[in-house]
Amino acid sequence: MSLEFETIAAISTPPGEGAIGIVRLSGENAVEVADRVYRSGAKVLAEQKSHTIHYGHIQNPKTNEVVDEVMISVMLAPKTFTREDIIEINCHGGITSVNQVLQVVLQQGARLAEPGEFTKRAFLNGRIDLSQAEAVMDLIRAKTDKAMHVALQQLDGNLSSLIRSLRSDILDTLAQVEVNIDYPEYDDVETLTSQLLVEKATQVKAHIQQLLQTASQGKILREGLATAIIGRPNVGKSSLLNFLLQEEKAIVTEIAGTTRDVIEEYVNVRGVPLKLVDTAGIRETEDIVERIGVERSRQALKEADLVLLVFNQNEPLSEEDLLLIEATNQNHRIVILNKVDLPNQLDLNKLETLVDSDSIVKTSILTKSGIDLLEEKIAALFFAGNTGERDATYVSNVRHIALLNDAESALDDVITGIEAGLPVDLVQMDMTRCWDLLGEITGDSVQDELLNQLFSQFCLGK
Amino acid sequence: MSLEFETIAAISTPPGEGAIGIVRLSGENAVEVADRVYRSGAKVLAEQKSHTIHYGHIQNPKTNEVVDEVMISVMLAPKTFTREDIIEINCHGGITSVNQVLQVVLQQGARLAEPGEFTKRAFLNGRIDLSQAEAVMDLIRAKTDKAMHVALQQLDGNLSSLIRSLRSDILDTLAQVEVNIDYPEYDDVETLTSQLLVEKATQVKAHIQQLLQTASQGKILREGLATAIIGRPNVGKSSLLNFLLQEEKAIVTEIAGTTRDVIEEYVNVRGVPLKLVDTAGIRETEDIVERIGVERSRQALKEADLVLLVFNQNEPLSEEDLLLIEATNQNHRIVILNKVDLPNQLDLNKLETLVDSDSIVKTSILTKSGIDLLEEKIAALFFAGNTGERDATYVSNVRHIALLNDAESALDDVITGIEAGLPVDLVQMDMTRCWDLLGEITGDSVQDELLNQLFSQFCLGK
Repeated sequence: MSLEFETIAAISTPPGEGAIGIVRLSGENAVEVADRVYRSGAKVLAEQKSHTIHYGHIQNPKTNEVVDEVMISVMLAPKTFTREDIIEINCHGGITSVNQVLQVVLQQGARLAEPGEFTKRAFLNGRIDLSQAEAVMDLIRAKTDKAMHVALQQLDGNLSSLIRSLRSDILDTLAQVEVNIDYPEYDDVETLTSQLLVEKATQVKAHIQQLLQTASQGKILREGLATAIIGRPNVGKSSLLNFLLQEEKAIVTEIAGTTRDVIEEYVNVRGVPLKLVDTAGIRETEDIVERIGVERSRQALKEADLVLLVFNQNEPLSEEDLLLIEATNQNHRIVILNKVDLPNQLDLNKLETLVDSDSIVKTSILTKSGIDLLEEKIAALFFAGNTGERDATYVSNVRHIALLNDAESALDDVITGIEAGLPVDLVQMDMTRCWDLLGEITGDSVQDELLNQLFSQFCLGK
Repeated sequence: MSLEFETIAAISTPPGEGAIGIVRLSGENAVEVADRVYRSGAKVLAEQKSHTIHYGHIQNPKTNEVVDEVMISVMLAPKTFTREDIIEINCHGGITSVNQVLQVVLQQGARLAEPGEFTKRAFLNGRIDLSQAEAVMDLIRAKTDKAMHVALQQLDGNLSSLIRSLRSDILDTLAQVEVNIDYPEYDDVETLTSQLLVEKATQVKAHIQQLLQTASQGKILREGLATAIIGRPNVGKSSLLNFLLQEEKAIVTEIAGTTRDVIEEYVNVRGVPLKLVDTAGIRETEDIVERIGVERSRQALKEADLVLLVFNQNEPLSEEDLLLIEATNQNHRIVILNKVDLPNQLDLNKLETLVDSDSIVKTSILTKSGIDLLEEKIAALFFAGNTGERDATYVSNVRHIALLNDAESALDDVITGIEAGLPVDLVQMDMTRCWDLLGEITGDSVQDELLNQLFSQFCLGK
């Protein structure tokens, strides 16, 4: 089953210092390459059984120098992640030791793996389909347990089997249409064929629409709900931010390939990952009114999926507050009346003429009151119209969403084509297009270029 | 052999996103705890052989929810890192998945491991001694291959066996002294005993001195040579820094437990790790004269093991240059005459009256000429008086160096005590003190408190 590929190697653990670092090899010669650098008495890895672990040292055969003390896992094809022979070298997790071990195996005949190349081989060797391969990366990048759950289900093939069953329905229909055209035994064959096409297109479209209904939630679970916290100086923005971050809910991610300055901060609110927008800015300056004029802040508001607008209910609404309400009228917004531990000075009736009263939450971040309500509101906003059942199949990937949308409009073309009385063989082409588009999700119909581009976004060593 | 300890668990891979993350368990119930969360048909880990790998899922037994798809390594006592049963759960290397798996095993009876607790158990269970345990951490933190080599040799027990042989010599002598005192068969027994003590103390002292001679190099290999690049604006400091950093020699380390702002940058120059001091400062401002006045810069110079003082030889020596020479007169210093691609305007004769002419290197960082010479000079400075033989036993650890110094002065007390005609049983106590001090290096004589303090400096999961 497995294609023959050269042996690749990469560091598969995150960069940095840790107790264990892993250099992974995959390919025809993985065991041979490992044996060239493995020393443990007379032990030879090629003679070991699959799925066994062996103690020893890595030695540079050129210099005879010992590079590290290691544990080696031998996993033989086909029951491996890539369906090829895999060697995992567990070394001491320092930057230098892991790099040195990698260098030695590269000198001994392995090639440095490209990002995602191990998963790509798992796909090319037929162990997983494309949507499952993408789930592997989603799983690694998941910010909350809900997001992980969605990725795990996709990895288990839930989305794939749904897509495959739709494609098989379409194929059956196309075959039937073919038969009808070739053997027009009845007079009303054209009517029958048209009916069949419309019926099937409508059926498949309903399934696709159902899937697409999960898309906005799926996408947020995958990428986080871009959230901006705004408000005048000293209303409690920083306290709110710090409260959210400090609750051990914070996940700070550096974006690969960029400078150290670009940091994304995520907060896990009842399973919903909030991606905090421009939080550095919030901490640097309290002068929101100055900042709101700045293009950068307007941009942040534009990109925000959710705005947390904070007021101090111990002060009357100011000009600036009104400005902020106006600036966020287009956003999903929760209005936080903070400092309820102090007397109320804010005209609630007036506020309710300006914002949706359902969007208002009263809190005191200082005394921690009302925060539960705020979190509930955020979760409710996210799960609106959804029972939040954990076993629903979500679409979360932008690529999948785009393909599903295209597939849906191909089906629309089928339906309107028939209605407009177009010839069946023209309409048939739209149905085939839908079949192809769905196939791109699972990778059954897919271009090399797309594959390369997709896998290049993976992390190294996966 | 193995003591009975509760089962501990920790994430053993570096924090962050990667292809593989490992949750490690060690202890009596490691396999039992793993079996509570492991699902793979009817397979049970307790029935598996040691050093085998098993595919499956981690499931939360409380919620029946699948947490991750994993490979589990089963390694049974005593042939493991800790000499206890060890389970390693290889999961998808995301922050969320690794954390979730850890949470589930903690819920099922494992306790979160303290930093260094796995290695501490390896020590307490007698698999390695204390200096070997310390080498484990040195190995992880090693910045260059030479530093790694030193750590590996220490891990292999080179230092330990040397120390043990010295201690056994001392013990033999003490026994002999005891016999002489108890059975004074000869009249000159006191003379003989005194001679024996002086002789042995002198012998052991010579060995300790030999070891201590490797200490400054060992310490630098371990911690890096603190290096400051200074010079007037536009002489080429940033270019030099960037050249060194850009050559893929840079190792950037965040210091654990501190804010993100504290960053150490290391550069590997021919095996010597240069720890660049205040490099951010170098890049931020070119106004060195302003900075030299600042306490912070003076401090940096004070702490620098090496100063790279850069001049532009296309300009005459300025007042500021003279100031910089004076400020660095107490430092190990290499004077770089940069921009040799331009005509010489700098009075070399005058410069040679101010600085050691051996310390001068001419470079053009622009055309990359002279950089080899610079690197040679740095390496020569480091390896001065040492053949750089790779198999010498180095002492690199501050704790070991301090203990060896104390042991040496205990031996001095033996020698001067005998010379001053002190009673043998008093002198004997100094010899015993030396034996104890050496024992603290290997952990043969060591306090619980010290152990706790030492291992707490380890990284989590090791």
